[in-house]
Amino acid sequence: MNKTSDLRIIVLGAAAGGGLPQWNCGCRNCAMARDPTSGLRPQTQSSLAVSLDGESWTVFNASPDIRQQIQNNRPLQPRRLRHSPIETVVLTNGDIDHLAGLLVLREKQAFTLFSTGAVGRIVADNPVFQVLDPELVSRETIEIGEAFSPLSGLEARLFAVPGKVPLFLEDGEPDLGIEGEHTVGVELKAGGRRVYYVPGCAVVTDSLAARLRDADVVFFDGTLFSDDEMILTGTGRKTGRRMGHMPIDGEGGSLDALDLLNIRRKIYVHINNTNPIWRAGSERERVEARGFEIGYDGMEVRL
Amino acid sequence: MNKTSDLRIIVLGAAAGGGLPQWNCGCRNCAMARDPTSGLRPQTQSSLAVSLDGESWTVFNASPDIRQQIQNNRPLQPRRLRHSPIETVVLTNGDIDHLAGLLVLREKQAFTLFSTGAVGRIVADNPVFQVLDPELVSRETIEIGEAFSPLSGLEARLFAVPGKVPLFLEDGEPDLGIEGEHTVGVELKAGGRRVYYVPGCAVVTDSLAARLRDADVVFFDGTLFSDDEMILTGTGRKTGRRMGHMPIDGEGGSLDALDLLNIRRKIYVHINNTNPIWRAGSERERVEARGFEIGYDGMEVRL
Repeated sequence: MNKTSDLRIIVLGAAAGGGLPQWNCGCRNCAMARDPTSGLRPQTQSSLAVSLDGESWTVFNASPDIRQQIQNNRPLQPRRLRHSPIETVVLTNGDIDHLAGLLVLREKQAFTLFSTGAVGRIVADNPVFQVLDPELVSRETIEIGEAFSPLSGLEARLFAVPGKVPLFLEDGEPDLGIEGEHTVGVELKAGGRRVYYVPGCAVVTDSLAARLRDADVVFFDGTLFSDDEMILTGTGRKTGRRMGHMPIDGEGGSLDALDLLNIRRKIYVHINNTNPIWRAGSERERVEARGFEIGYDGMEVRL
Repeated sequence: MNKTSDLRIIVLGAAAGGGLPQWNCGCRNCAMARDPTSGLRPQTQSSLAVSLDGESWTVFNASPDIRQQIQNNRPLQPRRLRHSPIETVVLTNGDIDHLAGLLVLREKQAFTLFSTGAVGRIVADNPVFQVLDPELVSRETIEIGEAFSPLSGLEARLFAVPGKVPLFLEDGEPDLGIEGEHTVGVELKAGGRRVYYVPGCAVVTDSLAARLRDADVVFFDGTLFSDDEMILTGTGRKTGRRMGHMPIDGEGGSLDALDLLNIRRKIYVHINNTNPIWRAGSERERVEARGFEIGYDGMEVRL
């Protein structure tokens, strides 16, 4: 395939679950994000929008903030009395920060919802999602590795990445790092370009490394800078790995894991409110010096 | 009781389900709300916050926009590392615009959730709400007419108002105007003051009129100006009454029904994006000339 049109990717939300600021958090970053003079702007929860023609869009993960995200991004706003440029929605897992926005996408609007069987069952098992009128919203189950088209001309595949079940389905200590339908990454191909979206990942396995090698862009899990960050900041008792997220830094972190894969642009997304890389003059500089970018709401990548 | 402290009520969200603008709506009001020069400011979905001391707050209905609402209202922001001034949440029905925000109020924060049995069962029947850790979030069932205290010193009662089941539980044509646990209003008493919150109401019955008589403030269902407004604006096929909402204007409308009840302040909330009263120089003037006020995000009432 030749390049026939721009592949446009907008980071609708660069933050992890809870957003920045998080409703009940007074940590340094959250306090800064509430202060308009701090230089740290508020960030919404995890989502990407992708288009080939600027008219039709697919949204990866329906964040609880999607109403605000649409308000912040003109290309996603209706152009007629009742209309949405959002033709399809793709879910990469069943976490609240990726799922709750489906409740916003009601009001008799047609679109197609793509997910694995496991994530689709979460939607099916919760009657509240019946606000999405089945006559208008078709739910498509996508097998791992199966090619599908969220937009005409865009080839997508879901692939399993090490993760865990959503928090609200945990029953005791969950299996960590299992690969299955509960946590997936997305591969996008159009006009010879190859892009990956992996907002949650517990470890970069050899097969994942092989897949990401030589990609044009990888949007990757930047939840925590260090594995014990939530414990150190006093905001939680779990390590990143316990939450299904590998750290950026340290042994087995994503800085090292992605460094040698010849990826043109490596962009962190799904960044937790505790993560120091939100702040200028912090560990952020080390990350940038390694050739990684830090996503932010409204960031647009064209290729 | 004597007046010992201010009763503060903040309109967190004055709009009905979908908000203003609604994600997929290009109607006149929604287009204006997307244009910062139009004079019509965006409005979030239906919620009130109430406090007696300015420190502890109870929130009536958890709107999908609650994260943004907290960001817009400093009294609701955390004052410590992990903290929320929101001590309790009260639900008046199980519609998405009143329920979805519960998914935002996660992250290991303790509060008490009050609702009728019917609305509580909706929460219980949807596993996604298990993100509210049962060890931290206690769910209390309140009987119709039973006194309870969402805040120390604040006496509350739920009362049935004519309505219907939530849209996502409709199975064929719903019973309209039934009174039960699915749609309730709230009566608040503190220091001799008496306030009502009725965001959804299909008809003002004689018993409801008797209840509201001589109140200090009534926040009332302002969904539609006229019963056929959605049909006339081409945005829907249902009348207001079919949606469980009586119109403001016309025979049996709330302007006439509330006019003669000697209520000190009558404030419309839960206003749909199609409602002309959002605009200056519209039917709004007639509503204001009748002595009614039109709620807006951030409106504060002290008494």
